[in-house]
Amino acid sequence: MVERVYLDWNATAPLRPEARAAATVALDMVGNPSSVHGEGRAARRVVEQARAAVAGLVGAKADAVIFTSGGTEANVLALTPTINVAGDKAPRGQLLVSAIEHPSVRAGGRFSTGAVEEIPVTAAGVADLAALERRLAALAGSGRLLVSLMHANNETGVVQPIAAAADLVHAAGGLLHVDAVQSAGKIACDINALGADLLTLSAHKLGGPKGVGALVIGRAELHIADPLLKGGGQERGARAGTENVVGIAGFGAAAEAAARGLADDAARMSSLRERLEAGLKAVSPDAVIFGATAERLPNTTLVAVPGLKAETALIALDLDGVAVSSGSACSSGKVTPSHVLAAMGVEAGLARGAIRVSLGPVTTENEIGVFLRAWTKLAKGLSKGSNTRRGLAA
Amino acid sequence: MVERVYLDWNATAPLRPEARAAATVALDMVGNPSSVHGEGRAARRVVEQARAAVAGLVGAKADAVIFTSGGTEANVLALTPTINVAGDKAPRGQLLVSAIEHPSVRAGGRFSTGAVEEIPVTAAGVADLAALERRLAALAGSGRLLVSLMHANNETGVVQPIAAAADLVHAAGGLLHVDAVQSAGKIACDINALGADLLTLSAHKLGGPKGVGALVIGRAELHIADPLLKGGGQERGARAGTENVVGIAGFGAAAEAAARGLADDAARMSSLRERLEAGLKAVSPDAVIFGATAERLPNTTLVAVPGLKAETALIALDLDGVAVSSGSACSSGKVTPSHVLAAMGVEAGLARGAIRVSLGPVTTENEIGVFLRAWTKLAKGLSKGSNTRRGLAA
Repeated sequence: MVERVYLDWNATAPLRPEARAAATVALDMVGNPSSVHGEGRAARRVVEQARAAVAGLVGAKADAVIFTSGGTEANVLALTPTINVAGDKAPRGQLLVSAIEHPSVRAGGRFSTGAVEEIPVTAAGVADLAALERRLAALAGSGRLLVSLMHANNETGVVQPIAAAADLVHAAGGLLHVDAVQSAGKIACDINALGADLLTLSAHKLGGPKGVGALVIGRAELHIADPLLKGGGQERGARAGTENVVGIAGFGAAAEAAARGLADDAARMSSLRERLEAGLKAVSPDAVIFGATAERLPNTTLVAVPGLKAETALIALDLDGVAVSSGSACSSGKVTPSHVLAAMGVEAGLARGAIRVSLGPVTTENEIGVFLRAWTKLAKGLSKGSNTRRGLAA
Repeated sequence: MVERVYLDWNATAPLRPEARAAATVALDMVGNPSSVHGEGRAARRVVEQARAAVAGLVGAKADAVIFTSGGTEANVLALTPTINVAGDKAPRGQLLVSAIEHPSVRAGGRFSTGAVEEIPVTAAGVADLAALERRLAALAGSGRLLVSLMHANNETGVVQPIAAAADLVHAAGGLLHVDAVQSAGKIACDINALGADLLTLSAHKLGGPKGVGALVIGRAELHIADPLLKGGGQERGARAGTENVVGIAGFGAAAEAAARGLADDAARMSSLRERLEAGLKAVSPDAVIFGATAERLPNTTLVAVPGLKAETALIALDLDGVAVSSGSACSSGKVTPSHVLAAMGVEAGLARGAIRVSLGPVTTENEIGVFLRAWTKLAKGLSKGSNTRRGLAA
């Protein structure tokens, strides 16, 4: 059996040992956190401990954290016209999102389709703040709007100018939601420093279990008037339903571990990524690394080589024991053209070849070496003009 | 340390060993089920295997199962005006629910408050089908309605006449949603025999992990046009978001184990419950067992003794090592008056004393004995008129 090299951490991160331990303990916790007896109170403690840990990762207070079933649910919960600030209940009529947001944000959450408007990005993959400012000025009359901007893009890794956007949005009387699913645990992600009013997290992107996430509320006076899941007092009324105790326990432990290792992990990944990209360029001089001129997450490389199809490359690399992706995994498994690259103005043919290599805190130099050898094999096949056959037959 | 006796299985069931094993294996599955590489495909297989197992428990086809984050989400997903049947897209204007439904059903899901109407229940705790028939006749002009009726009540255990209700609802051109969260795994729950168009399940009520459930679609031509979570192709477009692989794996294993043991488990619990209720009546001759004249789940007893407060009893029993509940645990941990008992016409004072004892497939005769001894202690304190002090001081 070939030893596998997993370089698809942006799709989902392997469980951290700390998260595994916490989840395993939680599997045997009998009680329902809403029950008043000893078993219930013990489960409640696990949930509340995790809540504090998740809050800690983003510099929030524990009671600002609403646990959800993942990033998508947190996004849908956040994107609603009925966010009250200090009791002001007039609905928000407009949602502005960048053109490179996650599909669950682009879908507009609970806003009607007509109320959602896209803000363009630059060729480097950065949200165009000048364009945002213009739209905010044009909409100044309407005033009450919500803007959603991701902290870091899942495909390119490009870090967005959140603090500057927050200033613009707040000056226009709007609120800012930040999808921090890809950034949290990889770079500093302090809700106050970012100026986010609402912040989405996902456990499994930072080494917790799949199927758990959180919406973090940036200000105490902010209140979502229409919970997505109603009919139970859990999460202080913000999200009904018995808590995913195992997932939440793992999320808390992962958040704590991620916070502890943040600076070191980022430095390590960044140095490995440099090695990876230098290697790629050496083997494939015409390789295009998307977003490379912008600030990026330390772990992400999105690359394309003219003439190399992503499907072919993925299959060939998978057979060589290397797991990478063609961009986002958050869909039905189909390789569809990237809306992120389209928004950056990348030519469709080149975009179809985009391959995302994403590293984790335990990625090794040796794994980068294995990847580069597999890539070299692939590139040689390509230069012989036979990559398609190789990909399907190997 | 006192050995604990857990008799609150309707709040949440301890994890079945089969579910624990499956969840533990899934904790170490690296891939995102939407990823095309080997790791992703392995995670996908776990999800699809569990889907078949969950479908098997209720006699459905695997592709009828939509995994959710629990019973509440499944209920909110199901209760929507936009259920198409065979492409007919006209919205359903009215939702009828019984007065004893779970709070997430009584909240009406995605129907506006004004569109939700309650159907009464009899003193025995059974949905009043004559009243349902009258309302269906009165609403015949409007035609397009959805009815939601639980299979078994979580507090009393009373089994509802679902098949008969389904006939009435279908004759009136309506659709029937059945919340089978408490019945599945305890009694037979075949979606076709019940005649349910939509059926809600929760893993943790039948020995799977907390935080995972399913909505099962009873007919292939039925389609929910507005998914609750949008922005990803998961669950064939019905529910976006990376799957809770660990929870789903545990759910599948628990469903399989529950299906296998169903008849034997029901017989065992039923016999232990007889013993329990005989013991209660012997110690407290004035004890009232709610719903006792109706068909009930084999594991549930809801009892009250005049003069005994539920809070007092719960605390005293908890201190004696016995975990029971005051009714539903699906809320904020507060002991609030039961809407179920109110709907049955139970006097408020007596209802406030209601204590639910719910058994599981591994409950033992010895545990029933421990409960009855603790109950006897409590009842003796009560007969001395000192139960309140004992409850707080013991």
